[in-house]
Amino acid sequence: MPIKDLFQDELKVINIGLESFKKSLDHCHAPSVQVDWRPPVAADAGALQTVRDKADAIAKANAKAAAKVLSAKPVLIGLEKALDVIPGMKKNLLLHAGPPITWERMCGPMRGAVMGALIYEGLAQSPDEAIKLAASGDIGFSPCHEHSAVGPMAGVISASMPVFVLKNEEHGNLGYCTMNEGLGKVLRYGAYGPDVVKKLKWMETVLYPVLKKAVAKVGKVDLKNIIAQALHMGDEVHNRNRAATSLFYRALAPAVVRTAPDPETAATVLEFINGNDHFFLNLSMPASKVSLDAARDIPESSLLVAMARNGTDFGIQLSGTGDEWFTGPAPVPDALFFPGFTKADANPDIGDSAITETNGLGGFAIAASPAIVQFVGGSAADAVNFTRAMYEITEAENNVYQIPALNFRGSPTGIDAIKVLEKGIFPVIDTGVAHREPGIGQVGAGILSAPPEPFQKALIGLAKKLRG
Amino acid sequence: MPIKDLFQDELKVINIGLESFKKSLDHCHAPSVQVDWRPPVAADAGALQTVRDKADAIAKANAKAAAKVLSAKPVLIGLEKALDVIPGMKKNLLLHAGPPITWERMCGPMRGAVMGALIYEGLAQSPDEAIKLAASGDIGFSPCHEHSAVGPMAGVISASMPVFVLKNEEHGNLGYCTMNEGLGKVLRYGAYGPDVVKKLKWMETVLYPVLKKAVAKVGKVDLKNIIAQALHMGDEVHNRNRAATSLFYRALAPAVVRTAPDPETAATVLEFINGNDHFFLNLSMPASKVSLDAARDIPESSLLVAMARNGTDFGIQLSGTGDEWFTGPAPVPDALFFPGFTKADANPDIGDSAITETNGLGGFAIAASPAIVQFVGGSAADAVNFTRAMYEITEAENNVYQIPALNFRGSPTGIDAIKVLEKGIFPVIDTGVAHREPGIGQVGAGILSAPPEPFQKALIGLAKKLRG
Repeated sequence: MPIKDLFQDELKVINIGLESFKKSLDHCHAPSVQVDWRPPVAADAGALQTVRDKADAIAKANAKAAAKVLSAKPVLIGLEKALDVIPGMKKNLLLHAGPPITWERMCGPMRGAVMGALIYEGLAQSPDEAIKLAASGDIGFSPCHEHSAVGPMAGVISASMPVFVLKNEEHGNLGYCTMNEGLGKVLRYGAYGPDVVKKLKWMETVLYPVLKKAVAKVGKVDLKNIIAQALHMGDEVHNRNRAATSLFYRALAPAVVRTAPDPETAATVLEFINGNDHFFLNLSMPASKVSLDAARDIPESSLLVAMARNGTDFGIQLSGTGDEWFTGPAPVPDALFFPGFTKADANPDIGDSAITETNGLGGFAIAASPAIVQFVGGSAADAVNFTRAMYEITEAENNVYQIPALNFRGSPTGIDAIKVLEKGIFPVIDTGVAHREPGIGQVGAGILSAPPEPFQKALIGLAKKLRG
Repeated sequence: MPIKDLFQDELKVINIGLESFKKSLDHCHAPSVQVDWRPPVAADAGALQTVRDKADAIAKANAKAAAKVLSAKPVLIGLEKALDVIPGMKKNLLLHAGPPITWERMCGPMRGAVMGALIYEGLAQSPDEAIKLAASGDIGFSPCHEHSAVGPMAGVISASMPVFVLKNEEHGNLGYCTMNEGLGKVLRYGAYGPDVVKKLKWMETVLYPVLKKAVAKVGKVDLKNIIAQALHMGDEVHNRNRAATSLFYRALAPAVVRTAPDPETAATVLEFINGNDHFFLNLSMPASKVSLDAARDIPESSLLVAMARNGTDFGIQLSGTGDEWFTGPAPVPDALFFPGFTKADANPDIGDSAITETNGLGGFAIAASPAIVQFVGGSAADAVNFTRAMYEITEAENNVYQIPALNFRGSPTGIDAIKVLEKGIFPVIDTGVAHREPGIGQVGAGILSAPPEPFQKALIGLAKKLRG
C-alpha cells in the first residue's frame, strides 16, 4: 500500500515495545493494541528454523493437544494402596517428584523423604540404616510422572501408602496421588522423625479406610467442578486450597459420618481435613495430571504435558517428544521465609505441584488468588499481571476454569515451549520452599519463574523429532 | 495567591465533574484526582443548615459510632427458642422484617409468611383461619429490629421458632435470627403450604437440637473471622454465602458428629446445611445487627444503625435519633427474574438483610463478589465500581473485612445519611426478589439503590434532635 493511502483509512495500530507510543495514539483516539515485547531468549538457531518451517503442523498439533486438556473430566473414583494400583509399583521401588534422579544427586529434603518412607515401610529401622539401604542399589527410584502419579515437594510414594485414584472420564486414563499430610514436620518437606512416620501410619490405618468407604458411598467426586468453584473463591489450587478443601469436605462429610466405624472416628477424620487447608492440593495435582496425560504423544505438539522439579533438576516434557525429559538446574526460589530462615536455608525448587501451572492453574490462575501475592509482599494488581502475562505463552483459555478478576476470562492453559522462548516469558510457579537439609521441613513460600534451560533443550528435542 | 504565582509551583489539581478535563491533565503529567460529582438530592434547607452548623459535633459522634461498629466482635454462642430469649417475645406476637407495619398494609409475601407462622404455631388450622386471626387484632406485629433480632425477606419470627443467639463480645449486646430454611418454597418468601410448615417442624425437632448441642460443644463460633475469610473467598455474605457456609460447616461438623443422637441424624443435618449455600446468611445478618446495635444512641451521629424493608416501606434508623424510623415506599428491584417471571410479578424490596450493607458488607463489599454482578449481567469492573462509590458515603474503612480486588482495602463501613444526601449517592443493596402474591416464593435476584425519601426524612429528624 502506498504511504499516502495508509492515512486515508482509519488506522489500526499494533504498538510493539515502548508503551509511550501507545499513549500518544490513545490521546488521538486512534485504536491501538500494545504488545509487551522483549528480546527472545537465546535459542538454537537451527531448531528455531525447523519449528518455524513446521509452524502450521505445530499449530494444528497444539490445538489438538489443548482440546484434549480442556475436555478432560477429572473425577475422584476411590482410594487404594499404591502397590495395588500404580502401574509398575513394587515393594522395593520409591516414586519421587520431578525428572529421574539417583540417590547420589538427590537434594536434602528428597533424601529425608526417602529415609522416612523406608522406615515407614519397615525396610529400615533407623535413619542410618535407611541411608545405607537407599545407597545400596537395592531400592529403585523412579519419577511419579512416569507412573501416572504426582507428588507434592519430595513427592515420595512407597508401596504401602494409600493413594487417591482419579479417572479422566472423558479420556479414560487414571492418575494417583497420596493424601496430604498437613503442615509442620511432614515427609514431603523431608522430615522423617518418629512423629512423621506415626502420622503416616495413622493416615494408612484410620484416615484411608474411612475416606475409601466415604468415596465408595458417594460413587465419585467431580474435581473439575470443585476446582472451577474454588477459582471463584480465592484459590488457585496450588498454594491456596482453602475453598477447594472446604467444598471437598462439604461434599464428603455426610458419607464419612454414615460409613465410619463410629462417630468419634468420623469426627477425628473430619478434624484432620478441617485442620489442613492444603488437603485438596493432593487432588488438584492428580486432577491436573490426568488432564495433561490425555494430551501426551501428539506428534509435532510443542505444548508442555509436565513441568516438575526434584529439588536438583527442573524438568519438562512436551506432548510431541514422548517420555523424554528436558532438564536444567532447579532455581532457588525468592520467597517469603518463615522467621529464623533465609534464602541460604532454601533448597532449590522441588515437587510435581507445577503440574497445576501446566494445567492453567496455580501461578497461571494467580489473579484469582491475590492473597498469595499479598503474602509475599505484592499487590492484587501484581497477581492480575502475572496471569495476564501467561496468556502470552499459552495455547488456549480454559472453558471451565475462570478468573473472576479478569471478568471471568478462562485461565491461560497449555504452555507452548516455543512461545516461551520466542517471547522470553517464563511460566510463573507458586511454590513452597523446603529447607535444604533433610529432616527440617518447610521454611517459606514464594513465586518463581521456570528456568530457560529445559525449554532451550526441549526446542532442540522437538526439532529433532520434526526432522524425523 | 496571585494567578501568576499559581503556575510557578507544581500544580495539584482536584477535578470535579467532567472527567475529560482530568484526561488532559494526565497527558501533561499534572497530578490530579477526579471527584465524581453530581448534584445533591433535594434536602430540607433548614435541616441542612442545622447539620452544617453542627458539622464538628456530628463528625465526632460519627467517629465514635464507627469505632463501635469496627470494634464489634460478633460470635455465635448458642441456639434457643425465640420465646425463651428474644426480649419482649410473646406467644401471640409475630416479629417481621423492616419498619413497623399493620396487617392491612402488609405486602403479599409478608402476609403469606404470617399465615405460615400462625399455622406452624398451631394458632390457625388453615390459610383462611390464619387470615382471620391475623386481621382480628389478637396477634401483635413488631419489627425484628426492635427486639435485637433480624430476619431475611418477610423475616417472620414466631415464639416456637429456634433462633441463633449471638453475642457482641466487645460490647456485650445480644442478637437473634432464625435458621435459614434453604431455597424453593420457604416461609421467608411468603410460602405457607404444608411442605413449608413440615420443614419448619423438622428444623425445630431435628436440626435445632443437633446444632444447639454442637455449638455448646465448641463453645462459640467466631463469626467476624468467618466473614473476613469469606470476603477473601468470593462472598459478600448477603446474596452470596457459599464460602462462609462452607467455613461454618467445617468448623461445626466434627461437633455435630460427636453430639448428634446417631450418625444418620448427623449426616442428615450436614446434608441440609451442605444443600443450602445461603445457610450463613442467617448468621451474617445477626452478626451485622449486634455490630450496629452497639453504635446506637450516640447523640448527634448521622450514621445508619439499621436499613430495612417490610415489602411496603423502606426504613432507616440513625444512631443519633434513637428508635425513630424514617420511611418511604420500598422500590421494586430491577432484577434478573427466574424463567416465567417479570418485574410485574415482583414485590417491592423486602427484608432485614440490608443490615449487611449497613455493616459494610453485601452491596458495599460487592467488589469481593463479582459473580453476583455477573449473574445480573454486569462485569467484574462494575462490582468494583459499586464498592468504590460506597466509600463516598461511609465514615470508615473496616479494619477486618477486606476487599481483595481493591488490594485488600477495608470495606466501606458506616453509612452517613448526610453524605448520602449531599453526594446523591445511595446505598447499593444486593437483594432477592419475592413474588408479590403470598404463597409463591422467590422470583429473582438483583441489585438496587436505597430510595431517597427515608434519608430526606432522617435529615429532618436529626436536625430536630440537634436543635434540642
